[in-house]
Amino acid sequence: MVKQRPYNFSAGPAAIPEEVLEQAAAEMLDWHGCGMSVMEMSHRGPQFESIIAQAEADLRELLQIPEDYAVLFMQGGAIAENAIVPLNLSRGAKADYVVTGSWSQKSQQEARKYCDVHLSASAHDDQGYGSIPDNAAWSIRPDAQYLHVCTNETIDGVEFHFVPDSRGVPLVADMSSHLLSRAVEVSRYACIYGGAQKNIGPAGLTLVIVRRDLLGHALPHCPSAFDYAVVAANHSMFNTPPTYAIYIAGLVLQWIKRQRFDGLEGLAAVEARNIAKAHLLYDALDASQLYETRLARDCRSRMNVPFHLRDTALNTAFLQGAEAAGLLQLKGHKSVGGMRASIYNAMPLEGVQALVNYLQDFEKRHG
Amino acid sequence: MVKQRPYNFSAGPAAIPEEVLEQAAAEMLDWHGCGMSVMEMSHRGPQFESIIAQAEADLRELLQIPEDYAVLFMQGGAIAENAIVPLNLSRGAKADYVVTGSWSQKSQQEARKYCDVHLSASAHDDQGYGSIPDNAAWSIRPDAQYLHVCTNETIDGVEFHFVPDSRGVPLVADMSSHLLSRAVEVSRYACIYGGAQKNIGPAGLTLVIVRRDLLGHALPHCPSAFDYAVVAANHSMFNTPPTYAIYIAGLVLQWIKRQRFDGLEGLAAVEARNIAKAHLLYDALDASQLYETRLARDCRSRMNVPFHLRDTALNTAFLQGAEAAGLLQLKGHKSVGGMRASIYNAMPLEGVQALVNYLQDFEKRHG
Repeated sequence: MVKQRPYNFSAGPAAIPEEVLEQAAAEMLDWHGCGMSVMEMSHRGPQFESIIAQAEADLRELLQIPEDYAVLFMQGGAIAENAIVPLNLSRGAKADYVVTGSWSQKSQQEARKYCDVHLSASAHDDQGYGSIPDNAAWSIRPDAQYLHVCTNETIDGVEFHFVPDSRGVPLVADMSSHLLSRAVEVSRYACIYGGAQKNIGPAGLTLVIVRRDLLGHALPHCPSAFDYAVVAANHSMFNTPPTYAIYIAGLVLQWIKRQRFDGLEGLAAVEARNIAKAHLLYDALDASQLYETRLARDCRSRMNVPFHLRDTALNTAFLQGAEAAGLLQLKGHKSVGGMRASIYNAMPLEGVQALVNYLQDFEKRHG
Repeated sequence: MVKQRPYNFSAGPAAIPEEVLEQAAAEMLDWHGCGMSVMEMSHRGPQFESIIAQAEADLRELLQIPEDYAVLFMQGGAIAENAIVPLNLSRGAKADYVVTGSWSQKSQQEARKYCDVHLSASAHDDQGYGSIPDNAAWSIRPDAQYLHVCTNETIDGVEFHFVPDSRGVPLVADMSSHLLSRAVEVSRYACIYGGAQKNIGPAGLTLVIVRRDLLGHALPHCPSAFDYAVVAANHSMFNTPPTYAIYIAGLVLQWIKRQRFDGLEGLAAVEARNIAKAHLLYDALDASQLYETRLARDCRSRMNVPFHLRDTALNTAFLQGAEAAGLLQLKGHKSVGGMRASIYNAMPLEGVQALVNYLQDFEKRHG
């Protein structure tokens, strides 16, 4: 047995459920009696075929993904997808973007290489990002190939708690940092993508869920390995997939299915617990004189909670005390400053309670 | 202690040194007392920064990589590089390719999306691939941006045991399946790349070693995440790198440095052992009436040894008996048929001896 592990608030790569790490360690030299580590298996052998098939089946079950959507296991993360999405879906024509934070800002910038980009809405003001412009006022071109949103901004802490109305234009969403933290109505999106390294598994795996009728229109210079139609036709085996990362993601999906909270099961339990965690933390921040969060209440992320100490001179003491208390990686992103607590699925309620206790204790000592 | 593990002859993903797997399992929940798994670390934190820096330093030491070469940790494998290389190095102009097997064939095919491709030589005949055309007879365009070779063909078992003369044209090599199996004169190449999943680590990591003066000429539609200049300027952190795969690769590099064989150390020891392993296996095949290998003697791969049973009706019995003897994944690639023994760095001499014993025993029973 290891001693109590510290709580890891990293924005990603991020905490993995301890049970998953224990299982991975136990199976490292011999997966299910086959005499090989998962890392050592041919991706085309029966063992790995069963691993990836189970992972896809579990993902489909948890998110209730309709049959007419392909599930792709890719590489490069959301930053690569910033190019891969327009390479596959823009047809070199018009694509509209909503900017609600640093990530959607990067997405629209990269897309300009491939198509005619229009900003349907932008939430940037002199405080940075922290709100979502009124959906009804978005300027959406009816002939756009898609409308792109980032439904949870990891850096800025802005989360969509509604499915945007895209007025019939196919809706594409970067869900990197909240996919599998809550239920999603997949059928309302044309394409959902995300890097795995928040709620799903290790860095190096990207999930893409895309409606099959949109495939087959990649631009001529799209690399074959990133052509959704090619990847789908080859069941994510056109190039060698990141096998070990897929295995860990599969263990995480199984872990999600086992979760229970407040009478709920699986993803519903995970979502309810995430809501409870977020309430606990935001309530503590709102009640404080020492800390502040600049986010509008209707778009506060359940996953990434940026906050500031009003007296920035206390930042170093805050972080040092946190680490000594077993609360790791709380420093905010350099573009926003201050602090950020990422409280993904693998963060237990007890971890958020420990953070709240520390916040209150620190305020008593320095407030 | 685990019992004796079977010998894994997979072409890749492939065997990882047992010591590495044991260390990875032991460190899974807590890397060096930091309280986190390597999977859970921010890629920008001090712990992972030290891991990637050490991996790069060890790679530079083992391959004696000159300072004017960048080392890039990328994603997508060699198949993605088939596009990424011309996107970065062709300038949309001329690029020459030598085809000596299935992989270089794929490379030249993909490159046609991006530039004017010319086949400098092709080794395909009615037997498939199994030789390297005389270097002096290659048709190399003097104004080609680069000449591309695959220095070890994983499927066909054709390995370059010399550095090709490219007549002043920058030489680009896919070394996926023999990088780190032997010394390389890096300075004679403009760019070397390879997927990690043969001799280096898990699938999902691609190594690129590229001369810095060639960077900065990516085509306009090159995704930023795959622009060598962008990746280099960001020390492989433009997008989140595959952190756990890099960690495992780092452990493998340390393992290579610890190797001793025949009075030699490190990569020289690994290379000498690989030569001894290859001799042992080819000598057994050459001495047999039951098995045959169709490869020219001067280009027989030390890493991937395709061979055939002259009586293909025995294939199933051969593979079943091998598995029962603890010799896994010997089935040949579907495009070549027969058998293939991949004997990468992590395959001990004892594993090859066990295979030879089985070959001889099987021949006695069925010859």
